[in-house]
Amino acid sequence: MAKKRVVIALGGNALQKNGEVSAEAQKKVAEKVGELIAELSKKYEIIVAHGNGPQVGNILIHEETASSEKAPAMPLETAVAMSQGQIGYWLSQSISNAFTREGKYKKVATVVTQVEVDKNDPAFKNPTKPVGQFYSEKEALKLAKEKGWVVKEDSGRGFRRVVPSPKPKGIVEKREILDLVRAGTIVIAVGGGGVPVYRTKILRVLKGVDAVIDKDFAAEKLAELIKADYFVSVTAVSNACLNFGTPEEIKLEKLTVKEAENYAKAGYFKPGSMLPKITAATEFAKLGKTGIICSLENLELALKEKSGTIIEKR
Amino acid sequence: MAKKRVVIALGGNALQKNGEVSAEAQKKVAEKVGELIAELSKKYEIIVAHGNGPQVGNILIHEETASSEKAPAMPLETAVAMSQGQIGYWLSQSISNAFTREGKYKKVATVVTQVEVDKNDPAFKNPTKPVGQFYSEKEALKLAKEKGWVVKEDSGRGFRRVVPSPKPKGIVEKREILDLVRAGTIVIAVGGGGVPVYRTKILRVLKGVDAVIDKDFAAEKLAELIKADYFVSVTAVSNACLNFGTPEEIKLEKLTVKEAENYAKAGYFKPGSMLPKITAATEFAKLGKTGIICSLENLELALKEKSGTIIEKR
Repeated sequence: MAKKRVVIALGGNALQKNGEVSAEAQKKVAEKVGELIAELSKKYEIIVAHGNGPQVGNILIHEETASSEKAPAMPLETAVAMSQGQIGYWLSQSISNAFTREGKYKKVATVVTQVEVDKNDPAFKNPTKPVGQFYSEKEALKLAKEKGWVVKEDSGRGFRRVVPSPKPKGIVEKREILDLVRAGTIVIAVGGGGVPVYRTKILRVLKGVDAVIDKDFAAEKLAELIKADYFVSVTAVSNACLNFGTPEEIKLEKLTVKEAENYAKAGYFKPGSMLPKITAATEFAKLGKTGIICSLENLELALKEKSGTIIEKR
Repeated sequence: MAKKRVVIALGGNALQKNGEVSAEAQKKVAEKVGELIAELSKKYEIIVAHGNGPQVGNILIHEETASSEKAPAMPLETAVAMSQGQIGYWLSQSISNAFTREGKYKKVATVVTQVEVDKNDPAFKNPTKPVGQFYSEKEALKLAKEKGWVVKEDSGRGFRRVVPSPKPKGIVEKREILDLVRAGTIVIAVGGGGVPVYRTKILRVLKGVDAVIDKDFAAEKLAELIKADYFVSVTAVSNACLNFGTPEEIKLEKLTVKEAENYAKAGYFKPGSMLPKITAATEFAKLGKTGIICSLENLELALKEKSGTIIEKR
């Protein structure tokens, strides 16, 4: 029987424990992730999408702080590509090593992925996603003028650049990713939600744009396009909850699309946190497939519908 | 007839013109490279390997200058992976766009590539390759102590870290790259000579190591392993020369392996410049295939043996 195909969206925080951000510490965490993915891949075709929040944040801080004429800072879109190389390398290596430790071998590849967005997406008119370092008001306004940045005050901690967070409408490398999956490869792709690109008006060529695509939405789009059977958004908790963190907390186990949509509309899920996971899993479930939210540890159980929050059409 | 398979090694400098190092300027240069590669790919299967000297240099400068406890600098091996994401993204996009401008489509993918080296390679006992920024003697000695770096005085301009430049012995993602090529994809791989990794003694797992692998050697190794027909090292000049830059300059057109080896032994080629290209092309020619050194503009002619320096066994 053909293996079922699973797209797993890991948080960029999934590589950081106890706030340790050195390469060594993150590789150590990646080792555990690699073992889990390797184990799962014995039963499923696996595509790993991952966030890059803390990693691209640090890249931007380095690039911008130490920018000079001779070594100018790379723009956000290129920094996303850099973070894909970085995290993809750590994950690829950790997954291969998990096989090696068992005396086995499996193909694993990280594909640098561009994700297409619509230049007319309303997000471009209303940038909301803070990126990079904090600046004083004066510095921030200077940068806004020099570089055309939109800057905003960030909860009393200083000023930051804000960028648009448009919806993904296509995955540029979807065919290449699918070829690899079909050839028996574990693929790491759409890192950090993908390098945001749009098609120019007349020539229709791809052009990078400084934006941040939600990694759950990008991973769901990929899952859709490569006809995955499961989309799993991995999070720190075992389930999506109603009244999360309160005495009235209710763990959600099985949801219909309708139920998930109603809870989302009623404001039960935190924007930028559980809400995009629920939204992405619900979108996927609308296709008649299974959208899952679960912890990394419970991933295998969740795929058997024995753990996590499972969203299906029904 | 099946297309012949060509591995092209591009210099990291091939993306920089007139010393312009901004992302915009490098993307503009990549556009031209993309057009050439797209054109060539109509007649050949193409795998593009590329250097990363100036790009990883700038990443290291940024990482090290702006390193802090909260945002620590990434090590060299991870910085190489970051440069693969960066340059791979630029090249992938420029190649796809060249097809789009013609109303065509072609699969293109950048694969983050680890290259295996031998921890017993003599290069590890004698680090020679300067990387990153210049330091004062005092700073350099402090870093040497703190981080275990080897530092050396660099021709009167200050102190720099030097790292080993071991020979590549395997390409970790060779099968994945080959699968993509066979599926009709232009693949960008072994960027910057690849992320240097070695196998640990007992567990035989992969582990990154701070080193720099020569991109011509890494690209030649890949060409060998994926059974390419041609290995082409692209350079700024049309041919390898004897007495380069002197009135006695002689352009080399066709060479046997023996001739190439003799010229190399006699010291005709500059180490770190033409010598690795000649060495890599000669190694490849020893397999009974064709090793080429030529300019980007003459690449198509060179593949027809009408330009460039062609090395064959005969």
